[in-house]
Amino acid sequence: MRRIAFDELRGRIETVLLGLGLPPERAALGARLTAETDRDGVKTHGIARLPRFAAQVRAGFIAPAAVPECVASFGAIERWAGHRGPGNLAAHAAMQRAMQLAQDHGIGCVALGDTSHWMRAGSYGWMAAEAGYAAMCWSNTLPNLPPWGASTPALGNNPLVVAVPRFGTDAHEPIMLDIAMSQFSYGSLSSYAAHGVALPVPGGFDEHGVLTTDAAAIERTQRALPIGFWKGSGLSFVLDVLGAMLSGGKATYQFSPNALEEVGQSQVFLAIAPAAVSAVEQMRTVVDGAIAAVHAATPVEAGKPARYPGEGALRIREESLKLGVAVEEAAWEGLLTLEEEMLK
Amino acid sequence: MRRIAFDELRGRIETVLLGLGLPPERAALGARLTAETDRDGVKTHGIARLPRFAAQVRAGFIAPAAVPECVASFGAIERWAGHRGPGNLAAHAAMQRAMQLAQDHGIGCVALGDTSHWMRAGSYGWMAAEAGYAAMCWSNTLPNLPPWGASTPALGNNPLVVAVPRFGTDAHEPIMLDIAMSQFSYGSLSSYAAHGVALPVPGGFDEHGVLTTDAAAIERTQRALPIGFWKGSGLSFVLDVLGAMLSGGKATYQFSPNALEEVGQSQVFLAIAPAAVSAVEQMRTVVDGAIAAVHAATPVEAGKPARYPGEGALRIREESLKLGVAVEEAAWEGLLTLEEEMLK
Repeated sequence: MRRIAFDELRGRIETVLLGLGLPPERAALGARLTAETDRDGVKTHGIARLPRFAAQVRAGFIAPAAVPECVASFGAIERWAGHRGPGNLAAHAAMQRAMQLAQDHGIGCVALGDTSHWMRAGSYGWMAAEAGYAAMCWSNTLPNLPPWGASTPALGNNPLVVAVPRFGTDAHEPIMLDIAMSQFSYGSLSSYAAHGVALPVPGGFDEHGVLTTDAAAIERTQRALPIGFWKGSGLSFVLDVLGAMLSGGKATYQFSPNALEEVGQSQVFLAIAPAAVSAVEQMRTVVDGAIAAVHAATPVEAGKPARYPGEGALRIREESLKLGVAVEEAAWEGLLTLEEEMLK
Repeated sequence: MRRIAFDELRGRIETVLLGLGLPPERAALGARLTAETDRDGVKTHGIARLPRFAAQVRAGFIAPAAVPECVASFGAIERWAGHRGPGNLAAHAAMQRAMQLAQDHGIGCVALGDTSHWMRAGSYGWMAAEAGYAAMCWSNTLPNLPPWGASTPALGNNPLVVAVPRFGTDAHEPIMLDIAMSQFSYGSLSSYAAHGVALPVPGGFDEHGVLTTDAAAIERTQRALPIGFWKGSGLSFVLDVLGAMLSGGKATYQFSPNALEEVGQSQVFLAIAPAAVSAVEQMRTVVDGAIAAVHAATPVEAGKPARYPGEGALRIREESLKLGVAVEEAAWEGLLTLEEEMLK
């Protein structure tokens, strides 16, 4: 682990994205989104994913200069096609448009199909909430999660984001929930397995079909656990089907199981302009009171109060901007290698 | 357990609701919604809840003749006030209006505050999906769930519904997810405890702060488990805050812990008209393919394929209409007692 100044990190990512063929403004935005992901402590979805992104561009699965476009529209809802461009740029444009629709109609929805991996799901929640919008968005993925009652994958560990804005002096500290439908990602499981540490709670099934905290056993069975058992299994299913129906992108069952070929995702971006029907003072009362109630609940570990969604990320962000962004050695080496290749 | 013809069940409920002071058309709708809940096998939220509803009306917490009204509106979003009328009737009206807004704008949202318990959450998903709309809705509740990391309640076991329509000959068999944010309801825990049966998966913490399948221990600690541990804890929080912000109703922290006084809920109803941007044939392909993939996953128990959300309810519904609605003796006696009181 080392710490890198945010601007250095962003600059190096930008060099890589330019080298991969993204137009300058697009590379700049992509670099900012990726650097912000590491800045906020979501190490699995920042620079650690760049090598796979580069491989997908080089293999022709992602079109680096493709720009998403609106292909159908009715009132406050639009369908967009991503044309397999960089997924974070398409998602950013889709949420931006959903916010504009919400500005005009109180609520707006953009369904984005034929896109690629959007990297950190939370990016699009933060951008909406920081601009004063409530937002919800989700993506599907390739099949990597068994439905409840089955032992072979047919669902995705689809991420779901719900973001709630705050107002006045707290506007930069919104509420941001970013959860995937599996209890642990496979990236997280392999990190626990490598360190030989037990999961804090059961994360899947072992060879005997028994719930286990043994990450290595779950890696062997590939039977990760949906959050809430049958409940997350159902939630993953409806998000997938609804996203694919609205966007015209792939449903989970239509993906190749090969991660390199994981393009064509379906995503939904919903934005609400709460000020259209609610007074700011009333909203502040609700949010402040709800946060205070969570903080006031008796902590399991003395001195460690429960936190609201996004609170942890905000603390890491602060630290990153003060001390530099913490990056894992392997991810850092991966970034430098890509950069060198681009500068050759 | 006995079986009662659907129309008899509905008729007896109607008598009770008329006796409690609901106007005739409102009593008829309320009776249908309640009877349908038992018909679909959701025994905890049908006639079993009528005695509490009656007690809330008699104690003056619910106004039996109150009608919800729109109090603010902008484009495709509206805020409604329930005036503490019967919660299922207000929720029905709110979803109906969200569907109309979706018809006009592609998507519609009604935030309903100052209402009362909506009984079965799924009712409003079924009505939307059967009419060709995708829908999402949720309610908050009084605090009955500790946030992750705490041991005292500050969150609600808020229900969340996601419904996805099907088309053509399958239109009456939509996809309907209806999940609460706790792994098991307290009603369900007390049923396991009474029968001395272990929960199928951990459902909360025992006196030593250890995850347990012992329902009685969880009843003692009142430390039920949010779905997905920290994930459901966060999801419960954002649904509560967003609902109260948009609707002007109570947030969870503003409720009295006394169940009799549990009125003033905040609820959100979102409807999408998918046909506004998507062709029916494409949507059929997605839904049929996704269902087939879940059915094709290797079952854990031979011969018992995984099911899609709502599939189980549809089977129970069919059986209920053929053989009569299955009702528990205690719930049935409760209904007959209320009916007698009304006919006095």
